[in-house]
Amino acid sequence: MDNRPIGVFDSGFGGLTVAKGIMKQLKNEKIIYFGDTARVPYGSKSKDTIIKYSNQIIRFLLTKDVKAIVIACGTASAMALDTVRENYDIPIIGIVRPAAVSAVNKTKNKRIGIIATEGTVRSGSYDAVIKEQTEDVQVFSTACPLFVPLVEEGWAEDKVTYMVAQRYLENLSDKAIDTLVLGCTHYPLLKKTIGTIMGEEVTLINPANETALVLEKLLNSKDMMHQEQIPEHEFYVSDLAEKFEGFAKQIIKTSTLPVKQINIENY
Amino acid sequence: MDNRPIGVFDSGFGGLTVAKGIMKQLKNEKIIYFGDTARVPYGSKSKDTIIKYSNQIIRFLLTKDVKAIVIACGTASAMALDTVRENYDIPIIGIVRPAAVSAVNKTKNKRIGIIATEGTVRSGSYDAVIKEQTEDVQVFSTACPLFVPLVEEGWAEDKVTYMVAQRYLENLSDKAIDTLVLGCTHYPLLKKTIGTIMGEEVTLINPANETALVLEKLLNSKDMMHQEQIPEHEFYVSDLAEKFEGFAKQIIKTSTLPVKQINIENY
Repeated sequence: MDNRPIGVFDSGFGGLTVAKGIMKQLKNEKIIYFGDTARVPYGSKSKDTIIKYSNQIIRFLLTKDVKAIVIACGTASAMALDTVRENYDIPIIGIVRPAAVSAVNKTKNKRIGIIATEGTVRSGSYDAVIKEQTEDVQVFSTACPLFVPLVEEGWAEDKVTYMVAQRYLENLSDKAIDTLVLGCTHYPLLKKTIGTIMGEEVTLINPANETALVLEKLLNSKDMMHQEQIPEHEFYVSDLAEKFEGFAKQIIKTSTLPVKQINIENY
Repeated sequence: MDNRPIGVFDSGFGGLTVAKGIMKQLKNEKIIYFGDTARVPYGSKSKDTIIKYSNQIIRFLLTKDVKAIVIACGTASAMALDTVRENYDIPIIGIVRPAAVSAVNKTKNKRIGIIATEGTVRSGSYDAVIKEQTEDVQVFSTACPLFVPLVEEGWAEDKVTYMVAQRYLENLSDKAIDTLVLGCTHYPLLKKTIGTIMGEEVTLINPANETALVLEKLLNSKDMMHQEQIPEHEFYVSDLAEKFEGFAKQIIKTSTLPVKQINIENY
């Protein structure tokens, strides 16, 4: 057993969907969450920049004595995980592999769709993990750059968002996919809109749930589960954007959520 | 006369509209442009963060021996100009004052609208400059958070953008304004859409043109004009986003535009 906390990070608050999945699945684990609100979003930035930011955040989380780190950001998982993993001694997992493996297990017609940020799609990470599992699947990816700003504007179920989603998802509509990976941690907040457009026959994969299950398996296998209870999670951000606390309370469904600001450029 | 270059900076490429205005108005001046593409956008971030970023960028521009600096970003002009100006010996101008003064001069019915980022609207900077000019004007402001991502998606003249603009500008439609300040340097790229919705009777103020005129007056008054010709402008970014060069070429209308990346966190 290992009573140290788990580090979870994202470019902003989207990764809270993953934190929430972990809180539900692993009720004894304490989470140290970091949202890089001073440099959000990551989806349009380069691989080098995302690797630099991820290293800074991991160095910060290590000062909190975390036992494992979850990269709760699709873009950072896709672009930085393989590189940063080699620099540290603790386990680091991302959301790409858990979601991709789950999609391979769920598809029946062997046709999987991926929606994600531009950076993630460009990286080809989802395709690579899927092809590693099986050559027998076709993957269709499309970037949805406006989804993050639309969620951040609070327009998740708005008519405009529906129109934008229709436009982006058109690229997948004639591909007969039966499984769609929501490849960015903001996207589960658009589940209803995406589900309506894709139809009931398409299974949506929420990386948050899949990642929590993979984390549980990892901690069990290494005998690293936390044995105490009622964890007091901690939340850190690089910019005290008012929005963060509001969205966080909405996602985590709590009335108090103390958020502290740190200077991430110092790490 | 002073043959040193002029520093111009923005959170990304929106400020290129201002750089272009300066190039047109002051043909002999050399521009050192910096776009903070690694941390874009600024509009949703806090005042402290924007001041920190602006100081770093000014320190970088000073290493290029600039004689004056133009903050070609609405949010940084609104939130950081007053603070950073005190730290440096060279003249620093923003886009807020030139645009606000021009609006006061142009309005006939004394009703001015301001559209800008959330941060700029929250700062109340445009209102403050206008009220300083005259108490006899009413100001109506509204934030348009999705305009920047829509421009960056390349959807400036898209149906979706028209709908979003209609939604945002609704807040101003019953205010009988005759002058509207495009308070963020991305917004002139949406001029056509905004103009169609507001109607011909509303004068749109493009901060780029106003700022170039103010800069010209400043350089003239201090005898700081450049006396040589065919300047070779330089462009720097904090993240080598592929998009930057594409958009830059579109705005500046040039076929070659060499962009260099620097690590802004080092300044």
